[in-house]
Amino acid sequence: MKKRSEMQLALQMVSGYGAEFSAWRMPGTDPAAYTNMDSYVERAKLAEQGKFQMIFIADTPALSNNLGPQTPMFPMDPMLALMAVARETQHIGLVATLSTTFNYPYNIARQFKALDVISHGRVGWNAVTTSDPLAAANFGARVENRQERYDKAHESIQIVQALWGSWEPDAWTLDVEVGEFADMDKIQPINLQGQYYASRGPLPIPPSEQGQPVIFQAGGGGEGLELAGKYASGVYANPYDITSALEHRQAIRQSAARFGRNPNDIKMFAGFMFSLASTEEEALDRRKQLMSFNPQEIPSRVSYLGSMVGLPLSVNSVDIDQPLAADLLKNAYANPMDPRSPRALKLLKEGLSVRDVLAHGVINYHPVVAGTPTQVADFLEEWFLAEACDGFSVVPDVSFDGVADFVNQVVPILQERGLFHKEYEGKTLRENMGVPYEYGLQEHGINE
Amino acid sequence: MKKRSEMQLALQMVSGYGAEFSAWRMPGTDPAAYTNMDSYVERAKLAEQGKFQMIFIADTPALSNNLGPQTPMFPMDPMLALMAVARETQHIGLVATLSTTFNYPYNIARQFKALDVISHGRVGWNAVTTSDPLAAANFGARVENRQERYDKAHESIQIVQALWGSWEPDAWTLDVEVGEFADMDKIQPINLQGQYYASRGPLPIPPSEQGQPVIFQAGGGGEGLELAGKYASGVYANPYDITSALEHRQAIRQSAARFGRNPNDIKMFAGFMFSLASTEEEALDRRKQLMSFNPQEIPSRVSYLGSMVGLPLSVNSVDIDQPLAADLLKNAYANPMDPRSPRALKLLKEGLSVRDVLAHGVINYHPVVAGTPTQVADFLEEWFLAEACDGFSVVPDVSFDGVADFVNQVVPILQERGLFHKEYEGKTLRENMGVPYEYGLQEHGINE
Ligand SMILES: Cc1cc2nc3c(=O)[nH]c(=O)nc-3n(C[C@H](O)[C@H](O)[C@H](O)COP(=O)(O)O)c2cc1C
Ligand SMILES: Cc1cc2nc3c(=O)[nH]c(=O)nc-3n(C[C@H](O)[C@H](O)[C@H](O)COP(=O)(O)O)c2cc1C
Repeated sequence: MKKRSEMQLALQMVSGYGAEFSAWRMPGTDPAAYTNMDSYVERAKLAEQGKFQMIFIADTPALSNNLGPQTPMFPMDPMLALMAVARETQHIGLVATLSTTFNYPYNIARQFKALDVISHGRVGWNAVTTSDPLAAANFGARVENRQERYDKAHESIQIVQALWGSWEPDAWTLDVEVGEFADMDKIQPINLQGQYYASRGPLPIPPSEQGQPVIFQAGGGGEGLELAGKYASGVYANPYDITSALEHRQAIRQSAARFGRNPNDIKMFAGFMFSLASTEEEALDRRKQLMSFNPQEIPSRVSYLGSMVGLPLSVNSVDIDQPLAADLLKNAYANPMDPRSPRALKLLKEGLSVRDVLAHGVINYHPVVAGTPTQVADFLEEWFLAEACDGFSVVPDVSFDGVADFVNQVVPILQERGLFHKEYEGKTLRENMGVPYEYGLQEHGINE
Repeated sequence: MKKRSEMQLALQMVSGYGAEFSAWRMPGTDPAAYTNMDSYVERAKLAEQGKFQMIFIADTPALSNNLGPQTPMFPMDPMLALMAVARETQHIGLVATLSTTFNYPYNIARQFKALDVISHGRVGWNAVTTSDPLAAANFGARVENRQERYDKAHESIQIVQALWGSWEPDAWTLDVEVGEFADMDKIQPINLQGQYYASRGPLPIPPSEQGQPVIFQAGGGGEGLELAGKYASGVYANPYDITSALEHRQAIRQSAARFGRNPNDIKMFAGFMFSLASTEEEALDRRKQLMSFNPQEIPSRVSYLGSMVGLPLSVNSVDIDQPLAADLLKNAYANPMDPRSPRALKLLKEGLSVRDVLAHGVINYHPVVAGTPTQVADFLEEWFLAEACDGFSVVPDVSFDGVADFVNQVVPILQERGLFHKEYEGKTLRENMGVPYEYGLQEHGINE
């Protein structure tokens, strides 16, 4: 059995390079990793050596960013990448995002369940509604209002679950002597009809070792919480600090309870980014090297940092390799709208140069630790013991060496402290996450 | 360069067992091959050793048959199966069916193109409109009339092609020094708007070594011919005899010419099934063993055979292990509606027992040769030299040993006779099929 005293780890694969958009330019990195499945497979194998519960591939069906200096944000195709990994790993969970708005439930159900069977029960589906207008345009659609997106998501998830359960657990008899491949009386249509989606079924796929894939949800908002509470066994979140993480986790647990579930059956993973080195200074140097690949972005980062601490900073008005002058700093204050601000202000007040403060990742999308393995482990321990999360969805600055470094240097510390398991508890993702077996539809109104 | 004097071979993978529904019960077969990607990978590797141009996985998104004595007709998921094969082969082409009716063009374009890039240009898409009402019901739809299905298919294929071409061939600059991952000026939206489908693009995927996947079409009819003539470089067909194959091939070639293409740029593959052994008698025994797994089907097969030759045959009125009596046979005639009838009648007149005539596969969906490697090679040679096809889409009765037997026993004969290549001509499917490089939209009216 999975113990609550142990955190869980998911490795974010992104588009193959790491969290930093300039990661593809780091020496050692394969610049074409985006199209090279070996890079996904190698990183996943390392994560499996490190006993990570899962890898996670986020996705939006669009080219959502400018590819000049940057790599794509998402993989060429998440399901094909997971398939490559499935064939060359044995234990690690395989989770990908697929949009409930821009895929037919039957196709979602089929591809995830097939992969779940192929991987012997290691698959998870992060069900998102996709709010990116560029994605909608790829399907000849406009972004629907939030209510409609989530209404569709409820129908999609219920149809997918029902299709997953359309073979009774013992339907696949495979009796060579008698000549019964399956018991057709135990393989039945689902005949679900929603307002947006409908499906007859059955799916041509038997149960997997964990019954069916684990459902994940990502992001917040009332609609997201409801989705999580009803269906999800895992939630990906990006809180910036312990306080907001605690709040989010409580809200998720309450939502699960509201829908009659045990709050312990839903695990929250907090996004976390790291830059590892043997000293903090070297870790900052690594991040400064990454920053140096895109010097044209520095001016906007500096002024963004200024807005976080109430100062009109610009590369023309300050020397970014020096600490801020005391008479400037005395007017600074932490922007109350941005939970990352207190940390930015604290570092500036400690006398770090503007460049070093930026290198600490204060304006990044995830909390960042740039430092030693012990510093990273300390951060994870603090959040976890504060019950701010059940685990972390970690992403290295640069995957090329970052995954191996985390596995070889941080994981052993967590294990020594009793904060992370030393062996997989079971064979399936459900067993390794400590969430219950599920099979078939958890009905929430699609037939009303 | 590919020579016209050489036939091409595609291996049909079906659901992992072979063409015969009882193949899963043959000794040696893994009865769970359906869920075991190893079985797909091993068969594909054998086909690659035999220099097959491609494997082909047909698909319909439905459980279209009764799983009691039979296995499913289609794989759990064709794209995942191809991905497994892509990672463990180097040369062989990878073709799967995906429905233009029940997939968004963006999703089709993305998954096929990603696989094409991953496999270094070995992928083909068999674009079908899906006429199975069970499939339609899985998407909450009814089967549309043929015209509407094909109107959608034209839009789908054009949008897919345009998305495939949404990066100019030299857009992926990958300049680590300068820091340019791609030249965004050369990655443009496609903004195609049809009556049923629309997409903005671009796809987040660079060109593959063959530009983009090869398009295939399957089946006949005026609408199918038009689709083939406009877009396809390969056509899968199931003619029963040389005459109808010749007609079909001519019609395809004329259709290509009508749309301004070189008729040699479209290759027709005739479906063909074989049962191999060192003597014809042993090959028939093998097929009788397969028949014996489903004794309950024999009565209907016998009366079906009767209807092909104008006789009211039944298991009650004749001894199926004996030749038909002369006074019964004298009333027999070949049903003019069924091109398989003359062969059935000929074998009956030669004095074969009813069971042996059935074992010859006269009522099968494909032409069948049950016999020695030389007999199989003779059949293929005759069709090919008659210009009835450009190659064959072959399917063994039982994949477990049938693929290896064909590769080891039939392929060398074809090679000796100069009818089949001894080495792959190039690296991509296009090169190995001898069809030209294509990139981007071949416009046929979507913007009118
Ligand atoms: C950690 C995390 C991961 C997410 N992953 C995805 C993703 O992979 N694909 C996606 O389209 N949206 C993703 N989202 C976005 C959410 O699903 C959600 O759409 C977003 O928070 C906006 O909220 P709304 O849907 O209520 O408008 C993610 C959000 C978070 C916080
Ligand atoms: C050799 C061959 C292969 C085919 N493969 C598929 C397939 O994989 N999936 C499918 O839905 N239909 C397949 N079809 C069916 C055709 O695409 C077509 O729908 C059928 O011939 C009916 O014609 P219609 O579309 O004009 O009604 C195949 C047909 C042939 C002859």
